[in-house]
This record gives sequence, structure tokens and C-alpha cells, in this order.
Amino acid sequence: MEDRILMAHGAGGRLSHELVVHLINCLSTACRNNLDDASVVPGAERLAFTTDSFVVTPLFFPGGDVGRLAVCGTVNDLAMSGATALYLSLSLIIEEGLPLVELTRVATSIREAALEARVYIVTGDTKVVPHGAADKLFINTAGLGTVPEGINISGAFARPGDAIILSGSIGDHGTAVMAQREGLRFSGDLSSDCAPLNNLVAAMMTVCPNIHTLRDPTRGGLATTLNEIAHQSNVNIVIEESAVPINPPVQAMCSLLGLDPFYVANEGKLVAFVPEEKAGEVVAAMRHERYGAQAEIIGAVNAQPATRVTLRTPLGTTRVLPMLAGDLLPRIC
Amino acid sequence: MEDRILMAHGAGGRLSHELVVHLINCLSTACRNNLDDASVVPGAERLAFTTDSFVVTPLFFPGGDVGRLAVCGTVNDLAMSGATALYLSLSLIIEEGLPLVELTRVATSIREAALEARVYIVTGDTKVVPHGAADKLFINTAGLGTVPEGINISGAFARPGDAIILSGSIGDHGTAVMAQREGLRFSGDLSSDCAPLNNLVAAMMTVCPNIHTLRDPTRGGLATTLNEIAHQSNVNIVIEESAVPINPPVQAMCSLLGLDPFYVANEGKLVAFVPEEKAGEVVAAMRHERYGAQAEIIGAVNAQPATRVTLRTPLGTTRVLPMLAGDLLPRIC
Repeated sequence: MEDRILMAHGAGGRLSHELVVHLINCLSTACRNNLDDASVVPGAERLAFTTDSFVVTPLFFPGGDVGRLAVCGTVNDLAMSGATALYLSLSLIIEEGLPLVELTRVATSIREAALEARVYIVTGDTKVVPHGAADKLFINTAGLGTVPEGINISGAFARPGDAIILSGSIGDHGTAVMAQREGLRFSGDLSSDCAPLNNLVAAMMTVCPNIHTLRDPTRGGLATTLNEIAHQSNVNIVIEESAVPINPPVQAMCSLLGLDPFYVANEGKLVAFVPEEKAGEVVAAMRHERYGAQAEIIGAVNAQPATRVTLRTPLGTTRVLPMLAGDLLPRIC
Repeated sequence: MEDRILMAHGAGGRLSHELVVHLINCLSTACRNNLDDASVVPGAERLAFTTDSFVVTPLFFPGGDVGRLAVCGTVNDLAMSGATALYLSLSLIIEEGLPLVELTRVATSIREAALEARVYIVTGDTKVVPHGAADKLFINTAGLGTVPEGINISGAFARPGDAIILSGSIGDHGTAVMAQREGLRFSGDLSSDCAPLNNLVAAMMTVCPNIHTLRDPTRGGLATTLNEIAHQSNVNIVIEESAVPINPPVQAMCSLLGLDPFYVANEGKLVAFVPEEKAGEVVAAMRHERYGAQAEIIGAVNAQPATRVTLRTPLGTTRVLPMLAGDLLPRIC
């Protein structure tokens, strides 16, 4: 590993993975982690437990803000484990001098997102650091949920023959934040997709309790998420490029900045691996939900070549879609 | 409220309280919080859930570091609700450029503290922000535990007639961090008391399941914690000043800097409110434990004057011990 932390260690790609593995090795026997977004722990009920810190800049962007992000990100991590999200913790690290009006606006947005997702904030903490020791506001949320009987979802459970479903267009969140940050003119056309996906997942589980894998492609984008699943499940993933929706302003912004939308973060999308024979029914159920209206089958799982993600282009050629290596868009979540 | 966040909003005293109340008001119906350190939520089992972020500077100090603090602080918040601490989440906000050797040292310290407290880290997150956007390393831990049948502990449950027990000397953590930060000569004599108190609490609950209130006096010190309890329980608290142990180097450091040790943070001490007839037995059980060897009865609870904390000095006079108003020692946890 590098001997100093680089921005790329936070970008969600290969260096992030190396950092996490290093930390897990340091924690050794004190750590139990399967690298899924939420950890399911035993008890009288099976509980799902997850955490995320949010350091997005700017705090406010089209389609959301750091508060909405902090609720949705953690609710979605719970939902991706098949859990019913119930409770959130909320911890704020505030830079001295932050205008109260901005803090109030963020807290109000947290309330609205929590009510939409039907979760309660039950515990919290605030810390204040001197001017210059943090950038405005960092938020941590941890989430607690219960996993229904018979539900077993993990990044390690994708199987050859599975159909791969995507809930909607990719790249909206990362491009919206980037455009807002850089003050780009056409930022008005871009809007973050930041949304709680727990109701969508509940609708999917109703028609297919046997979902194998669910993941929300945040940092590192769809390409990185698919690579993580290909590795965890030791399978080959084939994606039809033309089946993946990309909104025209997102495509334009990516072309301008030389970004690949497959690597740009989403905050209100999910990818699901389900038995092929259930795929049509799952897609139909998703399309009835607000955040699943654009759902599509985008690919399938093969046994070989294991751990690889292959993209089939509209021209019929194929290319390997690797994990994000460097630092694409810092501080988008 | 002030229209900008001040350092005093993070100091654990009156302004911190105002900030928390403001945030809870903003969160409104999305929030369920009793102002205890951990929230006990219903389920098949009663679960305790808590969160804390740690922004201490410097990262390493005599007796501990930010990693040990992050484990002990959250384990202790769970223990103060009477819960058996089981699982932690771990979220790191890392400043670009942090030497890997420092991160590794912190992670190793987290491992050792977790093993000592017998808790597992089951989920985590890492974010990296550019140089200058955070100060080296901030850590959030959230904690999950189960509350045994029949245990009901809260800051609101202190009752007239209760005896008040303190587990040991006060002011050690805050003075050790301050001395290290300022490079004071006699810092070698000071050492943080940072420790996991869950085994101590388990021993106390064995002899007295009917503990009314438990609290670890961290930010704002013993005085602020006692004021919080006096308000939550609507009682008068009387403390015998001479019964409260203060180590001589702590007393010297406080005299030099004009600090009152009653307002200086602790990270390995607890204050317990128990029925008077059980107090002797609880103290005896505590003294058998590593972190309770200095346990003493330091005071008692009266009905009136409600919400007030009174200190009886060795001279026989009394004075009111108010809540911390301003900003004593920033970033000690």
C-alpha cells in the first residue's frame, strides 16, 4: 500500500478496497465483516447494522443535500441487505462558524427524508471543531433494521443464470454534484437521484423473496459495484450497454469532462440479481414504484470467466469493464 | 440561539444542550430521543443503539488515542443504558496525506480496545477528504447492545433517597489531552483514564439490578453530567466535595490553567444512582473491578430544590454547581 492516504483511497475503487482490507487486517479478530453494505448480526431477530459518513461538497445541490443523502444512503444500505429499515443514529461534525440557517435546512431535509423512508432517528451526537479543522459539515448515520425470515441477500450470492436488473438511469448524482460544485452552466438540467429505496425493495421482495444480490451503485458507480459482486460471487457478469439508461444531460456532462457514466455515483438506484424466471415479474413490480419506473433487465450472469465484468456494446463487440482504479469525483457523498 | 455555530456548541454544556434541542425540534416527528446516551428501541429483544463521533486532537495522548476513545466512548454509552454491548460500526473520515503508519496504529488500538471490551466491529465506512478539509482523522462509532429483562436505567430515573457513587478520580482525560496538545512539561504525570466500563457495569448489575441512573461524565465533566440528571429526574443532587477523588497532577494542572476539575472530561469513569440500602454492596462489587477500584459514595439525592446540584465543601459551606456554560477544553473527545 501507499504510505500516505491519497484522495483515491476514498473514491470507492481499487485503492479504497485495499484500504478497507488493510483496516480489516489491523482489526483482525475484533472484526466480523463480509464486505456487504450492511452486516446481518444474530439475535432473537436477525438484525442488519450499517454505517456511512457523508462529506459531500457543496452541502446543497440540485435534487438533494447532505442531509437527504445521509438518510437515503444508510436506508439504502439496509434495504440492500433485505432488511426493513427501522432506526437511524445521527452524528454531526460541525465546523465553527457554520450559519445556523444552513444547519437548520439540513436538519429539516433529514426529517423529510426520514419521514419518506419511514425510519426514526433515535440517537445522536454533535461535535464542533474550530474553523478550518473540517469543511462545514460532515454527517454520519448508522442504521438498524430487521431481516425478515427467509431473506438471504448478499453480494456473494449471485449465481450463473441470474438476470441482472437496474432500477433506472445511471450517473445522475455524481454529475449533478460536480456541476453544482464547479458552477457549470447546464447544471440546471442535472439533478441528483438521491432517494430512499426501501419501499422499492419491499415491493420486489413481495414478488420474489429469493433475490440473490442487491446493491446500490454509489461511489465508483455501476461498474465498480458489478466488479465487487463478480469478485464476491466468483462469477462472470455480462451487461448490454444499450440496456443501461443514461439521461442526455448526464451523457453530455460526462462527454465534456471525459468521464465514463458507468463509474459515476448514483444515490437512488439499485442493481438486483434474481433467478432468470422471476426477472419479468420483478421488473413489472418495480415499474409500479416511484423509484423503479425505469427498471430494465440489463444483463446476465455466467460461470466463466469468473470475477470479470463484460460490457456488450451496441456494435456487438465486447470489452472488459474493470473496477475504478483512481480518483474520479471526490466528495460526491 | 446564536446564528452561527460556536466552539461552545460542542463543549457539552448549556450551548450544546441548546443545539441538540434545536436539532430535535427540526427533526420533529422523525425523531424519538429521550436525551440518554443510548436509545433503547423495541423489538423481539430490547436493543440499545448509540452513536458518537470523535474529533480529539492530538490523535495520540498519554493513556490512549482516538481509536481507543472511539471504542470506549460508544461501549460506555451502551453500558450506561444497562445494555450488554455487542457490536460496533466504525466509520473513518481521513484527511488526504495522513501517514499510513498513524492510521495503522489507530486501527490496532481499536482492535485492542474492542477485544478488551469483548465487542465486534461488524460494519464500516471510509471517506477521504482533501488536505485541509478535515484535521487528520475523525472517527464515528455506533453501538448496538441488548438490554437484559428487568433492567430500566435512565437519566430520568434518579429518586430522592438515592446514593450517588463515583467509580474513581475525575479530570484525568481532559488534562492529559490538554497537556499533550500544549506540550506542557509535566504531561508525563498525566494519563487519560480512557477505558471500557461494560464489565464494571455488569458487576454492579449483578448485585443491584435496580440501578436507577448510570452516566459517564465525558464532555462538560462531572458537574455537567450531574446537572443533566438533576434536570431529567427533577431532583436535587448534593455532592460532598471531599469525597470526589482528584489525582494531584490533575489538581496541579487545573490550578495552573484556571480550570475546575468538576468540568473536565473523563473517559473511563461513571456515576451511579442506586437505592441507598444497596450502595455499600455496589461499591464493594465495584472495588473488585479494574476500573472501579477507587469507587466511593460521593453524595445523595433530595427532592428539593429540584433541578439543582449542590456541592458541600470541606469547610461545611455549600455552593451551587451549575452546568458548563461556555467552552472549556475543545476537541478532547
